[in-house]
Amino acid sequence: MSTKFKILIINGPNLNLLGRRESSVYGTMTLADIEESCRTRAIELGVELEFFQSNHEGVLIDRIQQSKQHSDLIIINPAAYTHTSIAIRDALLAVDLPVIELHISNIHKRESFRKHSTISDIAIGQIVGMGPKGYLLALDGGVNYLEDSRP
Amino acid sequence: MSTKFKILIINGPNLNLLGRRESSVYGTMTLADIEESCRTRAIELGVELEFFQSNHEGVLIDRIQQSKQHSDLIIINPAAYTHTSIAIRDALLAVDLPVIELHISNIHKRESFRKHSTISDIAIGQIVGMGPKGYLLALDGGVNYLEDSRP
Amino acid sequence: MSTKFKILIINGPNLNLLGRRESSVYGTMTLADIEESCRTRAIELGVELEFFQSNHEGVLIDRIQQSKQHSDLIIINPAAYTHTSIAIRDALLAVDLPVIELHISNIHKRESFRKHSTISDIAIGQIVGMGPKGYLLALDGGVNYLEDSRP
Amino acid sequence: MSTKFKILIINGPNLNLLGRRESSVYGTMTLADIEESCRTRAIELGVELEFFQSNHEGVLIDRIQQSKQHSDLIIINPAAYTHTSIAIRDALLAVDLPVIELHISNIHKRESFRKHSTISDIAIGQIVGMGPKGYLLALDGGVNYLEDSRP
Amino acid sequence: MSTKFKILIINGPNLNLLGRRESSVYGTMTLADIEESCRTRAIELGVELEFFQSNHEGVLIDRIQQSKQHSDLIIINPAAYTHTSIAIRDALLAVDLPVIELHISNIHKRESFRKHSTISDIAIGQIVGMGPKGYLLALDGGVNYLEDSRP
Amino acid sequence: MSTKFKILIINGPNLNLLGRRESSVYGTMTLADIEESCRTRAIELGVELEFFQSNHEGVLIDRIQQSKQHSDLIIINPAAYTHTSIAIRDALLAVDLPVIELHISNIHKRESFRKHSTISDIAIGQIVGMGPKGYLLALDGGVNYLEDSRP
Amino acid sequence: MSTKFKILIINGPNLNLLGRRESSVYGTMTLADIEESCRTRAIELGVELEFFQSNHEGVLIDRIQQSKQHSDLIIINPAAYTHTSIAIRDALLAVDLPVIELHISNIHKRESFRKHSTISDIAIGQIVGMGPKGYLLALDGGVNYLEDSRP
Amino acid sequence: MSTKFKILIINGPNLNLLGRRESSVYGTMTLADIEESCRTRAIELGVELEFFQSNHEGVLIDRIQQSKQHSDLIIINPAAYTHTSIAIRDALLAVDLPVIELHISNIHKRESFRKHSTISDIAIGQIVGMGPKGYLLALDGGVNYLEDSRP
Amino acid sequence: MSTKFKILIINGPNLNLLGRRESSVYGTMTLADIEESCRTRAIELGVELEFFQSNHEGVLIDRIQQSKQHSDLIIINPAAYTHTSIAIRDALLAVDLPVIELHISNIHKRESFRKHSTISDIAIGQIVGMGPKGYLLALDGGVNYLEDSRP
Amino acid sequence: MSTKFKILIINGPNLNLLGRRESSVYGTMTLADIEESCRTRAIELGVELEFFQSNHEGVLIDRIQQSKQHSDLIIINPAAYTHTSIAIRDALLAVDLPVIELHISNIHKRESFRKHSTISDIAIGQIVGMGPKGYLLALDGGVNYLEDSRP
Amino acid sequence: MSTKFKILIINGPNLNLLGRRESSVYGTMTLADIEESCRTRAIELGVELEFFQSNHEGVLIDRIQQSKQHSDLIIINPAAYTHTSIAIRDALLAVDLPVIELHISNIHKRESFRKHSTISDIAIGQIVGMGPKGYLLALDGGVNYLEDSRP
Amino acid sequence: MSTKFKILIINGPNLNLLGRRESSVYGTMTLADIEESCRTRAIELGVELEFFQSNHEGVLIDRIQQSKQHSDLIIINPAAYTHTSIAIRDALLAVDLPVIELHISNIHKRESFRKHSTISDIAIGQIVGMGPKGYLLALDGGVNYLEDSRP
Repeated sequence: MSTKFKILIINGPNLNLLGRRESSVYGTMTLADIEESCRTRAIELGVELEFFQSNHEGVLIDRIQQSKQHSDLIIINPAAYTHTSIAIRDALLAVDLPVIELHISNIHKRESFRKHSTISDIAIGQIVGMGPKGYLLALDGGVNYLEDSRP
Repeated sequence: MSTKFKILIINGPNLNLLGRRESSVYGTMTLADIEESCRTRAIELGVELEFFQSNHEGVLIDRIQQSKQHSDLIIINPAAYTHTSIAIRDALLAVDLPVIELHISNIHKRESFRKHSTISDIAIGQIVGMGPKGYLLALDGGVNYLEDSRP
Repeated sequence: MSTKFKILIINGPNLNLLGRRESSVYGTMTLADIEESCRTRAIELGVELEFFQSNHEGVLIDRIQQSKQHSDLIIINPAAYTHTSIAIRDALLAVDLPVIELHISNIHKRESFRKHSTISDIAIGQIVGMGPKGYLLALDGGVNYLEDSRP
Repeated sequence: MSTKFKILIINGPNLNLLGRRESSVYGTMTLADIEESCRTRAIELGVELEFFQSNHEGVLIDRIQQSKQHSDLIIINPAAYTHTSIAIRDALLAVDLPVIELHISNIHKRESFRKHSTISDIAIGQIVGMGPKGYLLALDGGVNYLEDSRP
Repeated sequence: MSTKFKILIINGPNLNLLGRRESSVYGTMTLADIEESCRTRAIELGVELEFFQSNHEGVLIDRIQQSKQHSDLIIINPAAYTHTSIAIRDALLAVDLPVIELHISNIHKRESFRKHSTISDIAIGQIVGMGPKGYLLALDGGVNYLEDSRP
Repeated sequence: MSTKFKILIINGPNLNLLGRRESSVYGTMTLADIEESCRTRAIELGVELEFFQSNHEGVLIDRIQQSKQHSDLIIINPAAYTHTSIAIRDALLAVDLPVIELHISNIHKRESFRKHSTISDIAIGQIVGMGPKGYLLALDGGVNYLEDSRP
Repeated sequence: MSTKFKILIINGPNLNLLGRRESSVYGTMTLADIEESCRTRAIELGVELEFFQSNHEGVLIDRIQQSKQHSDLIIINPAAYTHTSIAIRDALLAVDLPVIELHISNIHKRESFRKHSTISDIAIGQIVGMGPKGYLLALDGGVNYLEDSRP
Repeated sequence: MSTKFKILIINGPNLNLLGRRESSVYGTMTLADIEESCRTRAIELGVELEFFQSNHEGVLIDRIQQSKQHSDLIIINPAAYTHTSIAIRDALLAVDLPVIELHISNIHKRESFRKHSTISDIAIGQIVGMGPKGYLLALDGGVNYLEDSRP
Repeated sequence: MSTKFKILIINGPNLNLLGRRESSVYGTMTLADIEESCRTRAIELGVELEFFQSNHEGVLIDRIQQSKQHSDLIIINPAAYTHTSIAIRDALLAVDLPVIELHISNIHKRESFRKHSTISDIAIGQIVGMGPKGYLLALDGGVNYLEDSRP
Repeated sequence: MSTKFKILIINGPNLNLLGRRESSVYGTMTLADIEESCRTRAIELGVELEFFQSNHEGVLIDRIQQSKQHSDLIIINPAAYTHTSIAIRDALLAVDLPVIELHISNIHKRESFRKHSTISDIAIGQIVGMGPKGYLLALDGGVNYLEDSRP
Repeated sequence: MSTKFKILIINGPNLNLLGRRESSVYGTMTLADIEESCRTRAIELGVELEFFQSNHEGVLIDRIQQSKQHSDLIIINPAAYTHTSIAIRDALLAVDLPVIELHISNIHKRESFRKHSTISDIAIGQIVGMGPKGYLLALDGGVNYLEDSRP
Repeated sequence: MSTKFKILIINGPNLNLLGRRESSVYGTMTLADIEESCRTRAIELGVELEFFQSNHEGVLIDRIQQSKQHSDLIIINPAAYTHTSIAIRDALLAVDLPVIELHISNIHKRESFRKHSTISDIAIGQIVGMGPKGYLLALDGGVNYLEDSRP
């Protein structure tokens, strides 16, 4: 039974504006809507969920560091920090938890600088361009990964 | 009701050896195992499924072209052709169906030439590194996409 | 009459030291001096002015996000974040206000990494190398832009 | 009199869908329409014509190799293989016939990877972006070339 | 009937020496010979023709600017300016006429810097390497384009 | 009093067509309109103004060379020569006058080759994307610069 | 005794034309001549030999996959696919047999794109530029390798 | 006597986890252990020491700015910000103090992006890969530098 | 006897200002001084000399073209056009005379874009950085070359 | 009979340590062992053999220069100088003898800088990664080459 | 007790001129002065010291090879060979001793080609820019490393 | 009178073979012939001459270092070391004498790696491609430089 798994979902800068900005790119669901749908799925999957957002790189790093004691897996949508933050990469390396990288929009359809991710090679994998639904896919995939990794 | 959706899953070169080669990278499930799990999920989702593999770029192109009449969405794991085939990209553009790109392993952890995909910017999105489970996530995400796109 | 226009001027890291560091590059006016000259001009132009500085990328993002309700145009001197912050770019995209990019010194005369700006292609334009006077030129140009854009 | 000249026109992948895909880029003429107009012109020019299409790189190579005995000049629209196939280049080098490279659309207006051709430096020249009419121009130019080369 | 079309052929630097220099690359026809053959074809096609050459970038720009009132299409062989002149590109953009780019020799067989053209992405297409015959092909193709574009 | 300052405004190729071409990029003011508004401002500022345009790189160089005796500052909009002319750079270096670089449109929103300027590192600064208003900002900034530089 | 070793020699596209094309580069021996000399040497070395050629990438992949059960070592001359086929690389990785890469001509003396091989880092080594004799050297070296690897 | 020298040691993101993460790369000493050994050496050297760590780029900048009044030299281990922060570079430039750059691990043995430092050219020098002992070497070297610089 | 040799010296843009600009780079001799010293040497060497300067690329091309009938060798200091003019290269190729490239200052000590010359590979050689004396060295070397080439 | 052929084998820096360093990469045979096996094969082949090693680039150049009189073919394993010495390339060009390049290990499996060879394009070919056996293959191939080249 | 440690300090080309050349970059201490200060420190640390310099790459390689029997650690200042010698890298790899890389000046403040070191990734670490004092820091750090590595 | 000037001419690797190798590139004069012609000119110019050649980088460095006491100017033809030796650059910097760089052949007509010189930016200038005559031109230019530099 997967009741014991604790999953932390971390969201990077400007995702607090989701649903209120550039809806042609990001859709109309707000981050609160996404959190709610994630919580519903977490209950179905029998896992504990934490959901976090910040615009501050340092705050995101602090939060990742704290996860070391309290989480089994991190789902992270680093938004713009995907492309510029080695410090977040180092924080994820430091806590040594499995990580799933998530992007709501298809970063490969956008500016070329969005193609590079500082964390893609230290993650299990990526869910990209699947919209808000991507969070649920990441939860499903993450629980599946944890179950497969159970000794 | 989604009964009407028809989904085509296309697998590129060497995936026929899955489970029998490099199991540390690709796991032990065979392509037949994956097809079976996909068929099970397709029944749950109420969609029709076609599942295809070839080592021949030309055969894959022929098959994509035929999908125009018979499919609503393509899930494609182009394997090595991900990085070299513009002809497959053109076939996907020509049939003008929504495409989900899938990779079993995390291509960002491997040789640098595997980072470039000829189709990532014409797909809806990517599911990368989630193992055989990725096929099921792609099916879920694909059906979700088709439902959202229904007028 | 332009009385109604509200303009936000945002200053990035280390600009709080202006006039007290590297005076051969940046001159001897302090940021407070610049703010004062901007406030004088704003009164002449009949516009409301907000003037803000922070060394923290996250704080700058938070402030840009708040501008959405309260500003008609942003003049931004992102200083070092010009070259590294995609998150500030995304915040500017999210609030969808006209932006004028400003640099006190001529960034093209300095280290080559200062040539690249993450926001130049989403701004109206740039005022570069005109010294503290550049803030007044940006105000003039910004008001002119807003007047021209008025239906 | 040019009656003796034999010209082979080879078409690469996805050109079989011409007129049925992306008509804003490629127009509405089908490949059969183009073949017909070429046959008409061939009669006017007094030359023999072969017209061939395949989606398979290997089949195209086989066909080029056979041309050695039966053709005086090759007009080739390699489509996507323009950018990726060194094997087709080598086949053309092997048969040592004059080659005219043809593209229906202006490849310089499209994705940057379409700018590179593996065969442009071994061809006589290129006809690019002139639409289906380009085939007729290539025929005219090809016959002119053969006549000029006649001892 | 196409009597009304007016076509301007513009030739760039050193083309005045054609037939008198590097005949192994450019053949033995002079520019006057080419002009004559073009005039013959123009009569056959029922179009008006202007034919112009200069070694001066500025003079070429002036001439292109004047075409705005008097031409329906420009055929341009920019010679060396193909690779260096953005000003000619801008002049062509400014007059907003359809443009066919022409090169007598196959620029892809020569120095690598000849591969880049500043105008290829704003032209209809290119005729490359077809020798003096290329001018006639461009005329044919240009008239065909104008007829297809006629409302 | 600044009566003594003499300012030369130089405009590069195709700017003579301003207001008559690509109005979505450059607006509807003609170069004559801009000259007139500059003359009005020059009177207000108490400076002498010369205003010059040519499509010929050599003519622009000749004109810059003559400025040595007759000008205190050059405002230059080199248009396409911004990106290709080292000779204009050398002329500006030779006369050793302060230079302000001006672009009407935001060159950073356009083709990537427009990002590079051969003169940006030898100018005081740049006014970019501010439309025809940019000329007036450059005049204001230029006069301010000359006043600050007065012993 | 090495009687038990089974060696597969695979030849890529256009090698079927050997001796009949570009003899200044490749010499006058045909592929049949080479096969015969290899069979003679195989008998001397006491090894079983299979010898295969195809112009089709997919067919080559199929053949490599079948080798898994029936071969101890692969000698491969991938010809043009050396530079473009990641799928052949993946097939070789999948069967996990020792591989010797062979080129008849010295690829370093030819076009620069021939310098890159997709398989050189997964092969034991390369025999390059030694002409048809290279096949015999590869056989000698391969048998030596297998003998050294015998427990 | 060096009693008067005040040295500030600044540590960047994730160094607070030292000794608790990736011990194969960073060893088992915690940052507190390092601070203690630095304080012991500072007493031996007769210098005042401040020791600071933060995960927040902005906080690090604030702290560097404050050093202007209170320090004679900065030893900085910017960790991940080494590679991404121009704002920290600018802060160091602004306070205009001598700087020694320090890295515990050998950054040249790790990912290639760790080779680039935004501050290496404005520092006195670097101590790299010497483990926690590197802090003591930097202190020794820093005091030596200050003594040599004393008029 | 070398009386019959005719040598043309061509000088590019801004060289008319020599001795009056940037004397720290170019010295104090004017172009007229250089011409005079060249004429003196020409008499000593028994050769005819023409000496030409223009700021206009087109005028330089025209002049080079005329040299075909009247010169045996060209010494050219293309100044800024060294780095940007392919048209001058083509003119030199067209007249097919031996060329010596000359630069007064050492272009390798200056901006990196001055390292590239469009004509260095079609010249006999280069005389760089030898100051005005370089013209005399080029004359000596040129006459020597012509004498050696005499049948 | 090939008795007359004289072959020189040259070994570059650090090869004197062979068998005593990094045996996982280079095996356990010493250079003396290899020399002995080469001498045995030379007797079988009826050729004279010289075998030379030095760590000094200059000494290797001297030795290559002397070969001009005394050798028919050079087999060279330049070791680290493969990647850095143009002087050895020039020496090989100067003596104008056929050269076979040899590497014991597969340089394509190692650091990327080992992929580039300064001599690969002037050699007949390369034997790479075949271990000490490679020397014997090179001898066989070299003698075969000399026999084929005999008039 | 560390009496048993033997440390070899190796100095590359032109370091014999230290103190007599470019004193603004390298200071006024001669290499003999540095050797003396190193010997003093070695006595304090209780280690044996060898100190060596050569301008010859081959001689440096010979010396490194000999160290295998007689040294526990190498401190090397390869000077110019830092950037060009792979042979020295290979010698260091071959003797398999711990290495500390040392540069007297800050190579990151100088020409960009000095940023690359062929040995930095095989060394323990680097001491850069600390002046002659760097040798003493390297000795301290080296002894510390050896003590920590002692079983 | 220039009797006192002492000039050292240094020749790099393989120049000892001059006249005996690749005569189509380098001509038929031997190095001894060149030395003799230099000595004749030196007498005419009233300067002392030393003439030196070595294939060993270290020997060349030693020789340059000795020049410090005994020479006023160095003329150097570094041959292959032009492109690879930073150590020779450093030796030239260390002795701080004026340097003229000389190449017999036009390096810009040859392999692209010959375009880069490690010393061109620290020399007075270059004489390139003027054949053996270049040595005499360098002597003339060098004496002229020394005379101009005399206080």
